[in-house]
Amino acid sequence: MTYTLVLLRHGESEWNAKNLFTGWVDVKLSASGEDEARRGGRLLAEAGLLPDVVHTSLLRRAINTSELALAEAARSWIPVKRSWRLNERHYGALQGKDKAATLAEFGEEQFMIWRRSYDVPPPVIEAGSEYSQDGDARYADLAPEVRPGTECLKDVLDRMLPYWYDGVVPDLKAGKTVLVAAHGNSLRALVKHLDGVSDEAIVKLNIPTGMPLKYELDETTLKPVKAGGEYLDPEAAAEAAAAVAAQGKK
Amino acid sequence: MTYTLVLLRHGESEWNAKNLFTGWVDVKLSASGEDEARRGGRLLAEAGLLPDVVHTSLLRRAINTSELALAEAARSWIPVKRSWRLNERHYGALQGKDKAATLAEFGEEQFMIWRRSYDVPPPVIEAGSEYSQDGDARYADLAPEVRPGTECLKDVLDRMLPYWYDGVVPDLKAGKTVLVAAHGNSLRALVKHLDGVSDEAIVKLNIPTGMPLKYELDETTLKPVKAGGEYLDPEAAAEAAAAVAAQGKK
Repeated sequence: MTYTLVLLRHGESEWNAKNLFTGWVDVKLSASGEDEARRGGRLLAEAGLLPDVVHTSLLRRAINTSELALAEAARSWIPVKRSWRLNERHYGALQGKDKAATLAEFGEEQFMIWRRSYDVPPPVIEAGSEYSQDGDARYADLAPEVRPGTECLKDVLDRMLPYWYDGVVPDLKAGKTVLVAAHGNSLRALVKHLDGVSDEAIVKLNIPTGMPLKYELDETTLKPVKAGGEYLDPEAAAEAAAAVAAQGKK
Repeated sequence: MTYTLVLLRHGESEWNAKNLFTGWVDVKLSASGEDEARRGGRLLAEAGLLPDVVHTSLLRRAINTSELALAEAARSWIPVKRSWRLNERHYGALQGKDKAATLAEFGEEQFMIWRRSYDVPPPVIEAGSEYSQDGDARYADLAPEVRPGTECLKDVLDRMLPYWYDGVVPDLKAGKTVLVAAHGNSLRALVKHLDGVSDEAIVKLNIPTGMPLKYELDETTLKPVKAGGEYLDPEAAAEAAAAVAAQGKK
């Protein structure tokens, strides 16, 4: 027997479209991101891959993606669980900055370190600055030493894993088909863990938006039966991943 | 101190628009029902009445109403809890039938008894019939003696109250602003309980769709400080309630 896990990265947001670093800023899906979410839901329905429970971050672009996808698959009624631990990487002081302008200002080397190094975070966001989440009610219960002011991918993995073990795994072990609707970096962190991707290789792995990625996990080891899982629409996923890799270079 | 409860009846569904008895049939919101939900969310935002947690039925018209309203109020991230106990009244054998045709076939007296008597349910829905929910995964865990085949309003009150006490009240007592997104009859049952409405009076009480109804509840008795609560847009609510009362008579 295997357990079934489906990962879904949110569709295009208003800031993806504007080429800004987003992180924990709670921007909306763009109209085309909403369409991506619905297409993801149709792929689930067509594959008969019907989630029994959904886990989301606390950011509306992932939440609304899950809502639109589940509505399309007639599964709006399933239980919903949320955690800040599934949030996108906190981009620190880069939050709200234009990607192309940041590239021009700091040069490609520094830019790529911030975007894709495994363990070097951007500078910490200044308290009280425009794109910090100070005073945001959804994080009010977090101890200050837990709440990030910036993160590298390694930090995301470290804060995501407790939710994987305590929040997601029990649902898998109960035999539920689990949907995780989240973000480029929180999903890369999860894929790194599941597939045992090296620190070097994970920085080159891109997860396309709005494309359900299905993993069958061994019931004993909780490791993927097939490394990398399977996209429900593999051709579209490969094209989309290439587009993500090129992002920020325009 | 008081506790704050907000009730929200779903907007127009595809079957409201077609004048069919719906009950537990999982029909979608119409486009105009989606607009009602968004307007409800704007009213919440404008009033600064921001839910900390939402409780919904297992039916998509209530769920999607809550999702659209919360998105509009930038509260998509709040915890979500669902229960079949908040579902619409099960309309038994009337589910899927045209309201005007039913009125013509059975006469106004019988029609009004089925629609609005407190304690006379319609005939039980036949097992395996087109609009029964046999085999619906969302009700798979319900013991057969608990799962309704038809309901009067009294039945709805009886099955709703355990969720009120065990699901909703603890959130209120934790000081949370609680949103309940549900249906004409499950909300009438709740209002009957809260306001102590008589069996006779409740059959004439209509709750308009898409209009947030706010109750402040006494912290000791959990009874409304002001009977009937307060609509955030009282004028629009009065007009809408009159329209609901006339429904089915065309």
